[in-house]
Amino acid sequence: MSKGITKRSEDYSQWYIDIVLKAELADYSPVKGCMVIRPNGYGIWENIQKNLDRMFKETGHVNAYFPLLIPESFLKKEAEHVEGFAPECAVVTHGGGKPLEEPLVIRPTSETIIWATYKDWISSYRDLPLLINQWANVCRWEMRTRLFLRTTEFLWQEGHTAHASYEEAEEETLRMIRVYQRFAEDYLAMPVIVGRKTESEKFAGAVHTYCIEALMQDGKSLQAGTSHNLGQNFAKAFDVKFQDKDKELKYVYATSWGVSTRLIGGMIMTHSDDQGLVIPPKLAPLPVVIVPIWRSDEEQQKVSEFARNITRDWDPLFYKIDDRDQYKPGYKFNEWELKGVPLRIEIGPRDIQNQQVVLVRRDTAEKITLGIDNLKEQVQNTLVDIQNNLFKKAKERTEANTFTVDSYDEYKERIEKGGFFRVFLDHTNPEVEQRLKEETKSTIRCIPFEAPEEEGPCMITGKPCKYRVIAGQAY
Amino acid sequence: MSKGITKRSEDYSQWYIDIVLKAELADYSPVKGCMVIRPNGYGIWENIQKNLDRMFKETGHVNAYFPLLIPESFLKKEAEHVEGFAPECAVVTHGGGKPLEEPLVIRPTSETIIWATYKDWISSYRDLPLLINQWANVCRWEMRTRLFLRTTEFLWQEGHTAHASYEEAEEETLRMIRVYQRFAEDYLAMPVIVGRKTESEKFAGAVHTYCIEALMQDGKSLQAGTSHNLGQNFAKAFDVKFQDKDKELKYVYATSWGVSTRLIGGMIMTHSDDQGLVIPPKLAPLPVVIVPIWRSDEEQQKVSEFARNITRDWDPLFYKIDDRDQYKPGYKFNEWELKGVPLRIEIGPRDIQNQQVVLVRRDTAEKITLGIDNLKEQVQNTLVDIQNNLFKKAKERTEANTFTVDSYDEYKERIEKGGFFRVFLDHTNPEVEQRLKEETKSTIRCIPFEAPEEEGPCMITGKPCKYRVIAGQAY
Repeated sequence: MSKGITKRSEDYSQWYIDIVLKAELADYSPVKGCMVIRPNGYGIWENIQKNLDRMFKETGHVNAYFPLLIPESFLKKEAEHVEGFAPECAVVTHGGGKPLEEPLVIRPTSETIIWATYKDWISSYRDLPLLINQWANVCRWEMRTRLFLRTTEFLWQEGHTAHASYEEAEEETLRMIRVYQRFAEDYLAMPVIVGRKTESEKFAGAVHTYCIEALMQDGKSLQAGTSHNLGQNFAKAFDVKFQDKDKELKYVYATSWGVSTRLIGGMIMTHSDDQGLVIPPKLAPLPVVIVPIWRSDEEQQKVSEFARNITRDWDPLFYKIDDRDQYKPGYKFNEWELKGVPLRIEIGPRDIQNQQVVLVRRDTAEKITLGIDNLKEQVQNTLVDIQNNLFKKAKERTEANTFTVDSYDEYKERIEKGGFFRVFLDHTNPEVEQRLKEETKSTIRCIPFEAPEEEGPCMITGKPCKYRVIAGQAY
Repeated sequence: MSKGITKRSEDYSQWYIDIVLKAELADYSPVKGCMVIRPNGYGIWENIQKNLDRMFKETGHVNAYFPLLIPESFLKKEAEHVEGFAPECAVVTHGGGKPLEEPLVIRPTSETIIWATYKDWISSYRDLPLLINQWANVCRWEMRTRLFLRTTEFLWQEGHTAHASYEEAEEETLRMIRVYQRFAEDYLAMPVIVGRKTESEKFAGAVHTYCIEALMQDGKSLQAGTSHNLGQNFAKAFDVKFQDKDKELKYVYATSWGVSTRLIGGMIMTHSDDQGLVIPPKLAPLPVVIVPIWRSDEEQQKVSEFARNITRDWDPLFYKIDDRDQYKPGYKFNEWELKGVPLRIEIGPRDIQNQQVVLVRRDTAEKITLGIDNLKEQVQNTLVDIQNNLFKKAKERTEANTFTVDSYDEYKERIEKGGFFRVFLDHTNPEVEQRLKEETKSTIRCIPFEAPEEEGPCMITGKPCKYRVIAGQAY
């Protein structure tokens, strides 16, 4: 079986598309810019949903569902918001065979429809906080699309919370960006930098935006999740007030936060290799595949029986025995490697004699011969090892590609090769960001939370700065 | 607390809306015909999803996701399909600030976009069967809407399978209508009649449609789920062929099947009463609420501690201790009754002395005093009892309201009072259905699978029939 995957070193973009298409994660759709998420890809999304949803519920949130269609006038109620989103909207002008009185947009994000609804639900401090999340599809008309990373329609979750004070809203904004960090690191095995977006990069309508940024194998940054403190902007736009304990009427404070199917793109570009997809075990729809090896019908019967015996008490969703007889073992190895199954177990006739099996790790290609006693536990331990190793490798790569640079000339020279750049840049000056973008196609990815205090001159204007920001080219 | 719920006997429609709004299951939205599903309602939908999804996976299906937007031309490729759905479509004419070359419709159902995609995925009998399900939102422009029962946008799942033969497709169509029956009866505690739709009531584009029909408390039928054998109609429309084992190229056979958030409406109208919502325990987001009762601060501390002690090893998602001190116990009882929590546990100071608690069943209002030994098990047993009792009561009501009628005059007289009517009707004659609709506002709900062979004259035309159909007025 020829996998037909372009090498990363030859053409990284093509490699990415090859992985997505050949591992059958997603497919192009007849509608420009939209994608079909195939079962292999959707299975990963289901695991992302399941685990994130649990983390949301553990932090006190409940799910709800708000309408897909939003009156166009709603978008216009928050000045920055409409400027940011109106140009990206898909607009419904006809329904039931007739022109509509007012056009409806397909939600590009749901702040407006949700705050129009919260107005009816909130009247007293007793109604707060309101901690709601929604799993939904959204549409943003994109010029240049790429499967999972940027598509016209995508799946996501969007949290929308309402609070009695700025401090509570800020606490929530921080809590959720930390939930995203934990999820990215513990499940996607993807190390991230947590920080604040600059004014020009923040969400349209937010007071400020926090983000997690990850470094892909080609040295480009990926914004993987954002959490916005919306202050009273949407409460004012939709006139949502509450009577506080002091009997005064006040505008409600808001947050919103989201991650999307883009995370699957980030996962692919963090771990996969020239052999195909690599999925962290915690998110793998199929963690283990067992490939019995035989030369005769008699052997086939024996190895298959052995495979069934040793997996008798395993959860059926945890593994699959690949006993298809139209394919040779080598073909199967290739296929499961391509599809990113974290652990392969090979069983040949001699293994029955020795009461053993051979484990092959997807992350290292290491072969491990194991006796069948305690096999389930050993397999589970190996999966934990793989999960940890993937994170470790990604962390090391990220650190090795995080550079501290002080001169703009050096930056311009090195930026093309990729990486996170720790630099002094006056992010309060929009012209600095403008020049950076034009001259280097890069942006300030974030002002990291964990930046040590450090003084130095902005590498573009020379103005004194008190900390370094993270800059780089991004998806 | 005045619940403000209209009595069923006064105004059944208003009672239904009162339940939905006051139990905070859903709310009207600013967009006509669309609804907001509130956390209390969405929690029920999450439980429906979780259990149905498991049943789909147990029958070999996987999930995927296809685009929301469908080129208008796709709809036109299947003649009956476009006739059925085009008048109901919401149409996107602009995207990214520009008019689109071809208008896109928001999926009213996904056969067309899915079969356009299956064309690329299927070439050999080895690719079959293809067993895919999708959880999604759809839009159908409706004139008269009612929360959960008929809304412009609703949430649903739609299975779309591809098979090598008509027989396999038929087997799948039957399998899935039986899955729906099992789900309706075992989880929603809603007895259903399973049968086939008449030609005029079948899905637009299907060879035939199977359905489950339930009888609501007002005597109206609710179509609660459908499963369609699509034959080769969509394969022909989208040119999807496979090479069979005999090397011949053949068109693929298809099925599709779906249930929606309408099930929540069915659940409400099957079990709820003048006191409020009744949720079957298996689908209740909150199965148990504990209300401690106190008169002094000292008592409050003691009963709360007792409540925490007896629930120490309970799953936190299974129960809630309502120790809000701004409300009296009577207010809380009313609130949880209204919201349909299946079981309330009351704990007063004297109960601590006696090491006992009082259980109050939502379905019967029965009070049961229980010692605290083995409490968890006894609570679980009571929930099983409640689930069974709800089904039994609904089954008895359905049977008591299923009438065998032979004369059209009698039918016309009784139809207004509601019920399932077992009647002889020549369903092969469209004029019969037309007259039935015009003269009695009723329809043939289905040709039941389990109808005994029985001969008699069509009550409208007198033509001999070989079995009775089920007729009635429907939502």
